[in-house]
Amino acid sequence: MIKESEHADLYILPELCNSGYNFSNRKEAMSSSSQADKHNIFIKSLVEISKTKNCGIVCGINERDKDKLFNSAVLISKMGIVGKYRKVHLFRNEKTIFEPGDLGFPVFKFMDAQIGMLVCFDWMFPEAWRILSMKGADLICHPSNLVLPGYAQKSLPAHAMNNGIFIATANRIGIEKELKFTGRSVLVNPKGEFILEGSLDSEQILSAEIQPESSRNKYITPENHIFEDRKINAYKELLN
Amino acid sequence: MIKESEHADLYILPELCNSGYNFSNRKEAMSSSSQADKHNIFIKSLVEISKTKNCGIVCGINERDKDKLFNSAVLISKMGIVGKYRKVHLFRNEKTIFEPGDLGFPVFKFMDAQIGMLVCFDWMFPEAWRILSMKGADLICHPSNLVLPGYAQKSLPAHAMNNGIFIATANRIGIEKELKFTGRSVLVNPKGEFILEGSLDSEQILSAEIQPESSRNKYITPENHIFEDRKINAYKELLN
Repeated sequence: MIKESEHADLYILPELCNSGYNFSNRKEAMSSSSQADKHNIFIKSLVEISKTKNCGIVCGINERDKDKLFNSAVLISKMGIVGKYRKVHLFRNEKTIFEPGDLGFPVFKFMDAQIGMLVCFDWMFPEAWRILSMKGADLICHPSNLVLPGYAQKSLPAHAMNNGIFIATANRIGIEKELKFTGRSVLVNPKGEFILEGSLDSEQILSAEIQPESSRNKYITPENHIFEDRKINAYKELLN
Repeated sequence: MIKESEHADLYILPELCNSGYNFSNRKEAMSSSSQADKHNIFIKSLVEISKTKNCGIVCGINERDKDKLFNSAVLISKMGIVGKYRKVHLFRNEKTIFEPGDLGFPVFKFMDAQIGMLVCFDWMFPEAWRILSMKGADLICHPSNLVLPGYAQKSLPAHAMNNGIFIATANRIGIEKELKFTGRSVLVNPKGEFILEGSLDSEQILSAEIQPESSRNKYITPENHIFEDRKINAYKELLN
């Protein structure tokens, strides 16, 4: 679909685009996994699209690293893979298939924006949004295969507003072996407002123009900087 | 108003009930402050109400402690003050008046519920909700004098849902020296649903019955416990 679309600087696709989601077991997941490198035929095809359309692509992939699997997201440009994140918070039977992400919460520069990535169930952990935002993410891309209807979308305005960031959740629609994906992809602005809201059940390309730099003023009042007002001495119990 | 109301086990009042909010300067705030102890005439009157109505009361107070002021919340029962919290995250010119809270985020038992307290602008800091919830709070009482219209209420469903707790925000209405308070007190359940929503501009007593123990099942799926799924090794940057 990207190929036929109008130009966008950055396309965001759902979780596990190269494999599907609803694996019967780890063996099945292994058989559809691939290394996240330039030899990967799926990555190669995305890089080709990036070149042709002069765009970036964020995409979920089933990543194999030796004998381990990760539920990853990659940021691809015409240069190749320019960023990778491995999902930290695994959902349901993903725990029997994937390793928890071991790359922390990294931020990558793309054009004039700082990009973070989270994957699906990571939405429920304010810690993840906070860390990426404090590290300078303007936009957090959130490839998803959400199945709990509306839960994440109820949480995203707070994550966006409390951190002053943009969030783009690209969620899957349709059914895979009895598992229904709940659609309603969204783009949220730093005020916690939905700029875009997709359909619950039909394939769409949604697009909007954003100014990444508008996420960088973290003063909610002249006296209140949302990160500098954090009182880390009172937060130690977060790591207990 | 409590005196004339139907019985409730717990009443939650707004921020700084014994003093008003919009102080011209610290001296004015000092003159309306009082120690949070049993000799305090305001506290005494609330304890009397607690005895008469056999109820608890959560209330914001302008607390003096020697030469310091704190924007505090107290939990009062017929036994007296059974819990105290001092606002950690100060808003605008509160910074020139109050000290940041120095009691951390404590949780108190009241009847069969575990109660946490936050005050107004604390709403913007997911760290505070998280710590109270991990310490066992079923219900977080949130006395407020909110002035940013709708901001907090947009964030509360996420705080409730991501932590599986009840939130009761008691917000002020009306105007005090050009400062308009935005009303819309709310009660939110652990699914992030508004059980109660108050008026923007008229005084009300809202009431609902909740089952505090319904906040204690932290499994969002049989495989996902919302606190045990936290990956603290990946969260160290929260304290940077």
